This record gives sequence, C-alpha cells and structure tokens, in this order.
Amino acid sequence: MNNNPSANKTPHIVIVGGGFAGLYAAKELGNAPVKVTLVDKRNFHLFQPLLYQVATGSLSPAEICSPLRLVVGRNENTRVVLDEVVDVDPDKKQVIMQEGVLNYDKLIIGTGVSHHYFGNDQWEDEAPGLKSIENALDIRRKIFLAFEEAEKVSSPEEKQEWLTFAIVGGGPTGVELAGAIAEIAHKVIKDDFQEIDTTKAKILLIEGMDRVLPPYSPDLSKKAQESLEELGVTVLTQRMVTNIENNTLSIRHGEESEEIKARTILWAAGVKASGLAKVLAERTNAETDRAGRIIVEPNLSLSECPDIYVVGDLAHFAHQDNKPLPGIAPVAMAQGKYMAKSIKDEIKGKPVAPFKYVDKGSLAVIGDNHAVVDLGFVKLSGLIAWLVWVFAHIYYLIEFDNKLTVMLQWGWNYLTRGRGARLITGEISEKDLVTKSFSNPHYPVPETAPDPEKETIKV
Amino acid sequence: MNNNPSANKTPHIVIVGGGFAGLYAAKELGNAPVKVTLVDKRNFHLFQPLLYQVATGSLSPAEICSPLRLVVGRNENTRVVLDEVVDVDPDKKQVIMQEGVLNYDKLIIGTGVSHHYFGNDQWEDEAPGLKSIENALDIRRKIFLAFEEAEKVSSPEEKQEWLTFAIVGGGPTGVELAGAIAEIAHKVIKDDFQEIDTTKAKILLIEGMDRVLPPYSPDLSKKAQESLEELGVTVLTQRMVTNIENNTLSIRHGEESEEIKARTILWAAGVKASGLAKVLAERTNAETDRAGRIIVEPNLSLSECPDIYVVGDLAHFAHQDNKPLPGIAPVAMAQGKYMAKSIKDEIKGKPVAPFKYVDKGSLAVIGDNHAVVDLGFVKLSGLIAWLVWVFAHIYYLIEFDNKLTVMLQWGWNYLTRGRGARLITGEISEKDLVTKSFSNPHYPVPETAPDPEKETIKV
Repeated sequence: MNNNPSANKTPHIVIVGGGFAGLYAAKELGNAPVKVTLVDKRNFHLFQPLLYQVATGSLSPAEICSPLRLVVGRNENTRVVLDEVVDVDPDKKQVIMQEGVLNYDKLIIGTGVSHHYFGNDQWEDEAPGLKSIENALDIRRKIFLAFEEAEKVSSPEEKQEWLTFAIVGGGPTGVELAGAIAEIAHKVIKDDFQEIDTTKAKILLIEGMDRVLPPYSPDLSKKAQESLEELGVTVLTQRMVTNIENNTLSIRHGEESEEIKARTILWAAGVKASGLAKVLAERTNAETDRAGRIIVEPNLSLSECPDIYVVGDLAHFAHQDNKPLPGIAPVAMAQGKYMAKSIKDEIKGKPVAPFKYVDKGSLAVIGDNHAVVDLGFVKLSGLIAWLVWVFAHIYYLIEFDNKLTVMLQWGWNYLTRGRGARLITGEISEKDLVTKSFSNPHYPVPETAPDPEKETIKV
Repeated sequence: MNNNPSANKTPHIVIVGGGFAGLYAAKELGNAPVKVTLVDKRNFHLFQPLLYQVATGSLSPAEICSPLRLVVGRNENTRVVLDEVVDVDPDKKQVIMQEGVLNYDKLIIGTGVSHHYFGNDQWEDEAPGLKSIENALDIRRKIFLAFEEAEKVSSPEEKQEWLTFAIVGGGPTGVELAGAIAEIAHKVIKDDFQEIDTTKAKILLIEGMDRVLPPYSPDLSKKAQESLEELGVTVLTQRMVTNIENNTLSIRHGEESEEIKARTILWAAGVKASGLAKVLAERTNAETDRAGRIIVEPNLSLSECPDIYVVGDLAHFAHQDNKPLPGIAPVAMAQGKYMAKSIKDEIKGKPVAPFKYVDKGSLAVIGDNHAVVDLGFVKLSGLIAWLVWVFAHIYYLIEFDNKLTVMLQWGWNYLTRGRGARLITGEISEKDLVTKSFSNPHYPVPETAPDPEKETIKV
C-alpha cells in the first residue's frame, strides 16, 4: 500500500535536486495533500541562465541565487534537507544520503548534469566549465587576473598569451561568455591599464559544427556570429579540440591542425549526467543515453520503477518529435510543473496525461545589449531581442524571490560600466599566476629580485 | 638628490595597501606632479565597516568592494600593481614584492592589522576573526550551516550547541555581529525550519572589560547593551577567555571559571600589526607597540627614515592627547588625505604641518534599525542614530564608487527580510559539519545508514 498515494496515509514525495525541475515541482506541490521533502547539497537554487554574468563580473552570486527555504521552506507540508543523496533503494523505497535515509512513496530526481570532457578529464584544470557558483568565481578570477598579469609581464609574446581568451563550444553558454569577455576587454576596462591595450585582446570562440548556436535556425546563427564579430570575437567553426596542455589548445580543422597559445581557456562544449544517474541506473535497470542521462517514459517515470521519476537535464525524454528535448531551463520548469500536476491528478483519481513540451522559443545574449531570439513564429535579433531576453529572465528570477536589484544592477552596469563585481577572490594558485619575468619603465628588476615562484600569493 | 622630491625628476610615491589610508592618499595625489604606484595583493578596496553585513548575509562582497583600478587606476600619474610586498630596502630605497621590485622616492605603508589571539593562534580554527572577504564568507557559512545542522541532529543537547553563537569581544565589530546574528535567529529565518525554534538560539557577547564598546561613553555603552538584550543577545562582561577547544569556550569571571558549549565561536577581540610591520621595523629600527604597530613621528614618518611613512591601523600615533589614535576608518582616511597634502606642500616648498585628527565621533549599529552614535557634542541612540550611521556609511561608500545598490539592497532586505545573500558557498569541511546522529519523524535511520563521516560533503 505504501506506494499507493491514494491510501489513507499522506504520501511522502521526495524531490532530489533544487534546480528548475525540482524546485518547480516542490513549489506546485506546496498546496497538495502530500508531504514533500526537497533534498539538495546546496541551500540555494541557482539561476543557471545568468551564471555567465557572475563569471564575467557583472552580477554577484547572491543576485542569481535564491535560498531554498525562502522559496518552498515555508510551505506547511514541505521539508528542506541540506544533504547529498548517494544511493537509492527501490525495494525499500529509500534514498540514502550522506547523513541519513529518507523513505519515499514517490521519488523525483533532478540532479542535472556536469561538464563532459569526452574522456579527457585532465583538461578540466586548464579549461574549467561553468556549472556552479564556485566555477563562476574561479572563471572570473582567471579572466581578471589575466589582464593583471598581461600588465606586469615584459615579453610581448607573454602579454599576448595572457590577452588571449579561448572559449570551447559555440552553444548559448559559449556565445554568452565570449560576448561578455569581449565587452570587458573592448569597453569596460579599456582605460584601466597602462602597459597593455586591452582592446588588443583576442577572444576566440571555437565550435565543432559549421555554425554557432547549432540548435537555432541558420539565419539566427549567422546574425549571432555577425554580432560576435562586431564585438571583437573571432569565431572559429568546424574546429575539433584534440588537446589542451601548457596553456596550448590543439585544434583539428579538416585535414589541418593548429595550435593556439591562450592563458585563459574556458569549456562550454559538453555535458554528462550527474553522478547519481549511474547509481540510479544500476539500481533500477534504467536505460541511459551516451551522456549518461536516464531515458524516461512518457510520464517521466522509469519503466521498471513507476514511482521513481527523472526530470530536467538529467532526463532523456524522446517521446516528442523523436528527438530528445534539449537540456534547458524552460523544459525543466515544464517538467517540474507537470510532475506536481500529475501527482495531484493521481490523488484525485484523474487520468494522468503524458508530458508534452510546448517550445516557447530559444534565446541567447551577445554582449550588453544584443541578443538573438527564436520564438518559432518570429525570429528577432539586436536590441529588441535583448529586451525580450532581459524581460524573460527577470520574469523568471522574480518568480522565485524578488530580484529587482538584478535589474537595477544591470541598469547601473550599463550606465557606469563599473563592473563592481569584478573582484578577484579566493586563493591564487601557482596555476593562476606564473609570471616568469617582470619589468617595465616603472619596475626595474635588479639581480636581487626574489624568485617569483617562491610561494603562493594569497589574495 | 634622489630622495628630494623638489628635484627636477618627478618623484615616485609608492603606496603599499589599498585600504582607507592608502586609497585616500592615492586619490588625492591623482592631480599632483608625482608618479604614484599603489601596490596591493587584492585588486579591490574593501569597505571594512560593512564587512559584518557580508558575514551575516545581508550584503554581497561586491557591494562593499571597489576595484582599485576603477577608483584610482584611471589617473594619468597612477599605476596599480597587484602584488604582495615582502620586504623594504631603505638604503636602495626599494620595496621588494613577490614578483618584482619598485624604486621609491617616498614610501607610504598602510597594510593594516590582522586578528590577534594573544599567543593562542590555535584558537583561530574554531574562532575565526573578521578581516577579509574570505573570512566573511567563512563566517556566513558557519552561521547558516549551524541552523541546518541543528535542524538535522536528534539530541536536544546537540541542537542547543548548534544554536549557541558566542562572539568574543564587545567592540564595535562584536556588537554588530551579535546584533545581526540575533536579528537572523529571532526574525529573518524564524519561519524557515520545522525541527527547531530559531528564536531559542543563544547569542552570547563576551567582553573582558566591565561594559561593551569600552571606547564610548558609559551611558552609550549602557544603551548599546540594552538594545542588544532587547534583540535577544546575552551580554557577558568582565569575562576572560582562557581556552577554546572542541566547541567549548573556557571563561574566567573573577574567581569563578565556566565553560560554554557553542558550535559557532567568532573572534572580535584583538588585532596585531600585519606581517610587513616586523620586517619594516627590523630594516628601519622603527619602534613598535605591544600589538606590533609602528610608532610614527608627528608627520607620520619613521624617525630614522624620513621618506618612509606609516598610515592607518598599522600606525601608532600618540602625539595627540598622549594616547594612540584608535584603528578606525575615519583616522585612516584623515591620515591618507594628510599624506597627500603634505607631499603637495613639500613640493610647493611650503612648511609641512604635523598630523592632527579631528574626531567626528564614533558609531556602532545594533541590529537592523538601531545604533549608538557619539558625535562628541551630542550622543544619539535608536532609530535616529541608525539613520546617521546609514547616511555616514553610504556617504563614504559612494565616495569611491557609486554603490547606490547597497542602499537599495538594504531597503529591500528590511522590507522583505529575504537575506538573499545568505548563501552557503565554498566547501564544507568535516570541521564545519560533524553531525554524529541524525533522525526525526521524517527521516528514520535504519541499521544500514552510511557513516556520516565517510567523506566531505561538497556544497
């Protein structure tokens, strides 16, 4: 009886992961006759679509994060647990966490995806990806330290290496990162240095396919590339990365192969399922796709475990147009809402319809006031598209937690170009900082100069 | 001739440290006929007086930090160098940095102070102090994790330990931290948990003297203590901390000694000179006080090295009222401005007057809308004092870098009590998280429960 929510006992819905899918499911179940437990290893929801703005110093972490307890913790029927789920026992109907165990009647898993280096995980050190707040702050440190180092080093070659930024992957994240870095170098900080001309910085966007934003329509890809080039981004398509080592990017282009020296390399090329997916697949004999995502039924459940559901980026849902849905926030939100509705329907004894995604369109921003938007019935680009983008993001941000300050912060940034958030925090490691030589008219180096690699500099 | 700024050669003024003293000196020298080099190991100025608000999650780091290049980097005659000064050579007139060397005609050192555990540095692990942005984020993590742990643990004793917050030191920082933590526990998050009543949290403020805010007048101390107690803070005066170990605070009170169990212990009791002071004293035979601060001449220079000056918290200036000036922002700002003016006067051939500090009064904030202010001619407390406090801080914040968003963020926090910035970021170590047991109605723990200490939880 335990697994029958229509039993007298109030069913316990356990939701793992406070991303868009999990959080929307929890929100919508707040008024349902169920007990809800939301488990996440973080105490906040991260508004992923704006993470690149934290990485490029125009927003602060708090501006795109909403404490989970603030969003759903006050619902009478909802518990928030700060813990990490490490295993699932479908027979006992339990999830095993680092610090405890939960019994569930229905289990909803939305733990998302992480970076995928296609079997070259050693690249991660030199080419970090952008998934967490910590990633974003690390990338921010890399970007702004690069200019500081370029200012200090003496050899022109080394200066240019520090002033070369390579972004691997021409999807929305890569496009947004490249555009934002170009804005920084060419506009925001162009008057801040004396020994370097930041407008000489090279920003390279490297894509394997024949155009950026492959999921979009070709003409929007074209518009996106044009705007990127206007901003000073060099777009390199049909390039495969074959190696990343010693600040050098090895690339294959058809028959030719080339090497690019860059002190800042960012990875936006691939994703793979979060660690929990593997365990889940073993325990439930669920099928997974090449990226390790769980293949789900039309109602998002697992074929062999009808009371376990997988939602968001972690779910491979291919019951529509015979191709899997993209791993984007709108799909995750829709699946979260669907889960809540289908649970409510089941309790009411209503039939549960299969999940259907209505594509409201896709958008990507390029620099401070330019974007491309594909709403299906109409395609937009330029300022108007950017305004649509801003509106859409503010609208969803505010759904969680009033984030009006974000809009003000943006307005402020665009007026002042202050980039107040461009702080270098955390600890600078040898890896970040490898200045070999150091001299310029102001800073003569005598024989007695100390060994620059003597010790790590704390910042 | 090199050390004579009135020589034909443009004198090179090297300023070490971008705090209030160093930054104001650099700002005011921006239009002087000198070359200025500002060296700091961070790329931003930290507005220390509001650091406790980052630690308690009502402001984000970026809101109290201003990039140095933004404040002074655009002055034609000014260079900003991101590096750490490790040594000084008064004979060669050089400062030695991790990555290079600078020649100076005049050297201004304002590297400030750090925590002082009075010979018990082992206490720092359990009782961190509040000086850097990283300190603030660590303390924020400690505070908000404590409530999460209290929610999860089963034994009432352990719950109470997690809900006990001890702040050592009743100066402005201690008072502000205690007040803010009380606000959080008693107001901000009181509806967010199910297994604990956060209003039962114990916030202890421990002071060695017979009253809080010893530098203030006795009646203001009294008012401050009353407001703290209204907020739910327990003020313990005439208590000496004799040991901190295993989440236990050992305290001596007259003849008696007592022990307090607290999972969150914060240190706001003492400061000592930054590392550079010791080296400087050795190289220049400068005298230092008990805290290691450099004793300076009436013009802030060193008796044996007239072209080296020490400013801000690092300087021990006792030529006024026969007692050293306090280590507070207004003194540092005044000394920075004085340095700039005296250098300009010297270049013009004008006589240089000794430094004189005009006390504009002292203030401390208690909770969200209460403060005490001593303007000398008038003493204020309550809301009116708080408004004075807010005005003063916003005024100085804005001097550097328009930080209107801070005011908006504050307004927003007071309206919503959202504390959007209460994110737990960084990595949680075993030290943060030592839950031994874990069970409550929702989370039955079977025999098969994994060892909670198995591994570090990443957040």
